[in-house]
Amino acid sequence: MPLLTQRLRDLRPSPVRAMLEASQKPDVISFAGGLPAPDTFVSPVLPPNSEAALQYGPSEGEPELRRLIAAELQAAGLDCAADQVLILSGSQQGIDLAAKLTIDAGTRIAIESPTYLAALQVFRFFGARFESLDPSLSVSWTRADHPAMAYVIPTFQNPTGRCWTADERESFACACEDADVILFEDDPYRDLAYEPCQRRPAVSWMKNGSWIYQGSFSKTLAPGLRLGFMVASRDLFPHLLLLKQAADLHSNRLSQHMVIHQLTSQDRDARRDFLVSAYREKRDAFDASMRQHLGNAVEWKRPPGGLFFWLTLPEHIDPDALLAEAIKRNVLFTPGRPFYADESLAVPSMRLNFSHASKDAADRGLAILGDLLRA
Amino acid sequence: MPLLTQRLRDLRPSPVRAMLEASQKPDVISFAGGLPAPDTFVSPVLPPNSEAALQYGPSEGEPELRRLIAAELQAAGLDCAADQVLILSGSQQGIDLAAKLTIDAGTRIAIESPTYLAALQVFRFFGARFESLDPSLSVSWTRADHPAMAYVIPTFQNPTGRCWTADERESFACACEDADVILFEDDPYRDLAYEPCQRRPAVSWMKNGSWIYQGSFSKTLAPGLRLGFMVASRDLFPHLLLLKQAADLHSNRLSQHMVIHQLTSQDRDARRDFLVSAYREKRDAFDASMRQHLGNAVEWKRPPGGLFFWLTLPEHIDPDALLAEAIKRNVLFTPGRPFYADESLAVPSMRLNFSHASKDAADRGLAILGDLLRA
Repeated sequence: MPLLTQRLRDLRPSPVRAMLEASQKPDVISFAGGLPAPDTFVSPVLPPNSEAALQYGPSEGEPELRRLIAAELQAAGLDCAADQVLILSGSQQGIDLAAKLTIDAGTRIAIESPTYLAALQVFRFFGARFESLDPSLSVSWTRADHPAMAYVIPTFQNPTGRCWTADERESFACACEDADVILFEDDPYRDLAYEPCQRRPAVSWMKNGSWIYQGSFSKTLAPGLRLGFMVASRDLFPHLLLLKQAADLHSNRLSQHMVIHQLTSQDRDARRDFLVSAYREKRDAFDASMRQHLGNAVEWKRPPGGLFFWLTLPEHIDPDALLAEAIKRNVLFTPGRPFYADESLAVPSMRLNFSHASKDAADRGLAILGDLLRA
Repeated sequence: MPLLTQRLRDLRPSPVRAMLEASQKPDVISFAGGLPAPDTFVSPVLPPNSEAALQYGPSEGEPELRRLIAAELQAAGLDCAADQVLILSGSQQGIDLAAKLTIDAGTRIAIESPTYLAALQVFRFFGARFESLDPSLSVSWTRADHPAMAYVIPTFQNPTGRCWTADERESFACACEDADVILFEDDPYRDLAYEPCQRRPAVSWMKNGSWIYQGSFSKTLAPGLRLGFMVASRDLFPHLLLLKQAADLHSNRLSQHMVIHQLTSQDRDARRDFLVSAYREKRDAFDASMRQHLGNAVEWKRPPGGLFFWLTLPEHIDPDALLAEAIKRNVLFTPGRPFYADESLAVPSMRLNFSHASKDAADRGLAILGDLLRA
């Protein structure tokens, strides 16, 4: 046997990936994964300067894209400059870089419970011990006793859809700053807001703390571009840049120029408005179908943004067994357990994506789930 | 101070990156980096199926691209199937994945001396101890006492340009297999062959061993596409796939379709022939300029392929001091020392890239280096 790392033993196949694969079959109705609706994608257009984008480029990313992102974040309330922006090959890469920055074997990482399962997977691979945050987000950290990093999704959280209030953002950011905890805010859904809510980045409440904020173009432009970005406090940025360089030198330059083209195009606001109202309508239709088919035993809140409904199930339902039956009937969803770092905290639950399936397909799929729940 | 990983202390800025940055200034003549000549790049053309490439895709890569790569490798003498091919976001990513697969703190890794410095950087970050291979490539490993992995570049090595003979390939592959060492063969330059030489992948001599082979489209199509590939023995492939998924979900799909378009286009062979003869001509002109300007104190062999000349300098020359002077006169090169894992093995040396600068600029730059060497 060749020698492999200790770490590999903790790397489990992500359910997301298995779901993505199964969801590519033609007749499947998938509520799993977080696939955006293809009719919302930008058309790929090669920018006029695409020839220049074929050489090796800077690890930081294209200067114009960094400037545009910094300007948008300033407008969103985060004080940052273009030289704090690092272009990523999708925001999954940001999780890998942040883990490399902070996690040695045994390092303590604070996470929401439940939270994004592919982040748990990466943190676990690097050897993290997890500290699950309370729903109240209250912590009792000190400078002598604190996790290295807190990974949170304050805006339309994955999987719960929760959006933190301004008070929650401020007090959590201050708790991190006071205890010297790196605040890592993952914000891929911020543009998908269906109701007015607080979306100012939590890290913006920090004064001198260490923070990382990341966003994605996968949900608002197209996932196939594989582009996201990270912004970090000045103490962390140089380290993250080196880690980015060691990971893949730099991100795809044609994609970066396509994103620049989109961010500066006349119809940008119109596109976003169209996207948001299309998803709001889907969310509401999904909600109505669930009320019709799933009955009273299942509980959920209509999320103010993002791509998911989070459902809690009666105690006697086993979501994994339910999934096995659902797959036989060509319906997919993601059971709740893998979203918990500490599985003993898991309640019977499931995450349903409402953005990908058509309205009719979603209704059919939910009817099938309703049948299975009653059986 | 926030808590950062132990590992970060070993992550030094790569000289490559500093060079890439300096080389973007307009008046600089750069022999540093490994920038291909822009006039060899493919024109970016969106394939007809580009709309379909905007959704999330499989972590393995596009099925058609995997098939095309497997077929090319079979023709090159490596017995492998499409389901052993993993598409990468450039071959730097393959180094990160292989390191995650094999390196815990203190893990022993065998490398050529000198070798690709950005591989050393990544392996060092994950905690490798290095074992420098002898130029004869002879080893005395046993199943009880061996490195976890051997990282080698048998074809037009970076930085030396060396190309292993068939005997060297066979005996090294067998030594790895006999001692259960993972053979990681990095092969980004194989298409840039200016003389007939053995290029059959070394891993193809293994029968039941564990191996990883990787290649790149950066040198033959365009670096800005950020696409490479990895092929691995069946025992390693599932682990590498999980690591790829955790790193960035999957590689850019538009780029993958552009590469499919190129690999299947009518003029593919003509493009490669053009590229090879253009680079051969540049290599020969560079060689002639060096003979004219650098004099007898400097030694080199004309490389049979690849992008670099490797020069050994007289003992009294300090390449770092030479570089500092050269930069003042707008000439860049890469000093030899960072290519050595064990700097005590380093001889005064420098690596000169001949593919990027124009023939005239190269001649001017080499005249400046000659002046500095004599001063």
